[in-house]
Amino acid sequence: MKIITLLTDFGTQDGYAGTMKGVILGINPHVTIIDISHEIPKWDIKAAAFVLHSAYRYFPSGTIHVIVVDPGVGSEREILAVQTKDYLFLAPDNELLSLIFEHERDCMVYRMTHREKYLADLSQTFHGRDIFAPVAAYLSKNVPLSEIGEPYQDAVCGLIPKPKMDLNKVAGEIVYQDGFGNLISNISKYDLAESGISENAVISIKGKTIHGLRTSYSSLSAGELLALISSAGFLEIACNKCSAADILQAGAGTKVVIRTS
Amino acid sequence: MKIITLLTDFGTQDGYAGTMKGVILGINPHVTIIDISHEIPKWDIKAAAFVLHSAYRYFPSGTIHVIVVDPGVGSEREILAVQTKDYLFLAPDNELLSLIFEHERDCMVYRMTHREKYLADLSQTFHGRDIFAPVAAYLSKNVPLSEIGEPYQDAVCGLIPKPKMDLNKVAGEIVYQDGFGNLISNISKYDLAESGISENAVISIKGKTIHGLRTSYSSLSAGELLALISSAGFLEIACNKCSAADILQAGAGTKVVIRTS
Amino acid sequence: MKIITLLTDFGTQDGYAGTMKGVILGINPHVTIIDISHEIPKWDIKAAAFVLHSAYRYFPSGTIHVIVVDPGVGSEREILAVQTKDYLFLAPDNELLSLIFEHERDCMVYRMTHREKYLADLSQTFHGRDIFAPVAAYLSKNVPLSEIGEPYQDAVCGLIPKPKMDLNKVAGEIVYQDGFGNLISNISKYDLAESGISENAVISIKGKTIHGLRTSYSSLSAGELLALISSAGFLEIACNKCSAADILQAGAGTKVVIRTS
Repeated sequence: MKIITLLTDFGTQDGYAGTMKGVILGINPHVTIIDISHEIPKWDIKAAAFVLHSAYRYFPSGTIHVIVVDPGVGSEREILAVQTKDYLFLAPDNELLSLIFEHERDCMVYRMTHREKYLADLSQTFHGRDIFAPVAAYLSKNVPLSEIGEPYQDAVCGLIPKPKMDLNKVAGEIVYQDGFGNLISNISKYDLAESGISENAVISIKGKTIHGLRTSYSSLSAGELLALISSAGFLEIACNKCSAADILQAGAGTKVVIRTS
Repeated sequence: MKIITLLTDFGTQDGYAGTMKGVILGINPHVTIIDISHEIPKWDIKAAAFVLHSAYRYFPSGTIHVIVVDPGVGSEREILAVQTKDYLFLAPDNELLSLIFEHERDCMVYRMTHREKYLADLSQTFHGRDIFAPVAAYLSKNVPLSEIGEPYQDAVCGLIPKPKMDLNKVAGEIVYQDGFGNLISNISKYDLAESGISENAVISIKGKTIHGLRTSYSSLSAGELLALISSAGFLEIACNKCSAADILQAGAGTKVVIRTS
Repeated sequence: MKIITLLTDFGTQDGYAGTMKGVILGINPHVTIIDISHEIPKWDIKAAAFVLHSAYRYFPSGTIHVIVVDPGVGSEREILAVQTKDYLFLAPDNELLSLIFEHERDCMVYRMTHREKYLADLSQTFHGRDIFAPVAAYLSKNVPLSEIGEPYQDAVCGLIPKPKMDLNKVAGEIVYQDGFGNLISNISKYDLAESGISENAVISIKGKTIHGLRTSYSSLSAGELLALISSAGFLEIACNKCSAADILQAGAGTKVVIRTS
């Protein structure tokens, strides 16, 4: 049983994701299709990269992850197929896969070139339907990458900024705001360990100071700001039963510093 | 063919529900996963209880219903597995299952205790992924409840208030506002029968009076308020092609009275 | 492997679409159910007709398309089952299928009459659950149309207005605004060819003039208006990385004219 996941900024109103599924099932009726999200903010490559990175490892080995956040659709940008040890990723060559390239060793990178695998009536505005969907479906039927494209060396990379690490201090920024208003930073639990920062830390964001790393949202009263390690392993600023993003007027790009108290 | 349904307040932007599906399919690739909703208002246990109650009986016998509206995630609250004649429910012990306990006889209630069935890298903020998903997947493979947890007597209950019944009069309240702006009350068609109230009733809500129970939205002109029995069997205040909630400035908690005319 | 698609205005909060899936799987556990959209603007039959028309041909032959945008639910309106060469459509008789009738030859039209195929406890407000879902499930098990209903001649039609065609000029209107704010008109690429209009055209909308048909959104700078042929084959007014609908304060019904420059 093969799985194809879809991660796009298409929204759910217009039937675009459903249309991709129709194309996929027409080529491989036995594949299981799972939506990761179609509600990535329009054209927000950084948010898509973060959501992908949080989700992809929880799927079974062999899963094909298809990511279409593609403001350059119809331009000269390449479309990539990237094989890692456990997964295959299809995405436009626009930094979407930066975190995958960073965390996965031994990526085999192809660019798609075999137009006979695309839909015959190829549009310039909906490659999700006309290229990504049929190619993913063929790959789910074990068509080899060499029949889809050719090896490629020049994939772009480098989207998510690195935190600045010092002894007892790490300075980073918020990279994703989730639907609960939780603010998730680029500072990982490994960064904290490396800088010698424990749960008795002090966090500064937007002029506010938060003391200590908690283990759950409900450890403080409703409405209070707190910090913890997110379920994806990053420093997260949250609020019990409220939106930290609203309270702090913060979002992607907001600076955050954590230091030993 | 086993079915697992998901009902959460996770929203659809962040990939949280998709991640749960990845975990489930990694353990049981042959299960069918159906979304009931991921758009329950954040932390709104009462709304989730109502939506669950409206939907669960329409699934085939043997379905596993997983409900994660869980403001207490990571705290000491228990996670329940409740076996009824036809269904198995997984939910935090926070009154989510009150209507199930009320309507289903012979509930066998377990609390989850077998940590070896959870994901190894257990977070404190995403038990949907780390506990609910793998446990549901194992149960869908017919792992017995005794290998998941232990019998439990102290599940909390009592979320939805009861209407006040008199002869020819029932006083209740709105418990759910749906996406059309329909206002659904806690007064059931059985309550009306018991109080001797027929379709020639008079309904009072927010100082407005509505005459009679209709059988369809389109029985009045567009924009007019009406009352009928909802598809889940409760007194509902609606409006043809408009939102009763907007017109009445009403919602969950608004009082409603129905009496014989 | 049979496929049933769902296209409704139910939204995703209330569990209505999930409930339909429960009913379907109770009758045919082996069917694959695909959501085209549940976010059609409430009661917007024209938008649903357009989304259906853009999506339906991308599904495998044999797919059953179920469309429930049904402001007349519970009234005397008929429910149609329409067999075309490749597809079967279930929809209320309210012009939803106008574009199907226009583009598909040899439609066999039935109205549903066999109440024993409905859920026994038939509501007057949720025919999606009580009629559409079980009937679609039976049809997916190859129950013949003659056991569902009877031939019907009087289906209503005629929803989408035709553009006015002249030599070197076509005058039409916007019929759909998608989630990106793209404005899609009723002027097809065939209309343009018939009127002798090439890519060197001039487009007028809301007092603005747009020169030329582009092939991709990213062919102009971010924020600039452009025109192209949509992925469904219609004249579309768009904007690179922004919403043409917002910039032009335009939407369904806005007039658009294209002429030879």
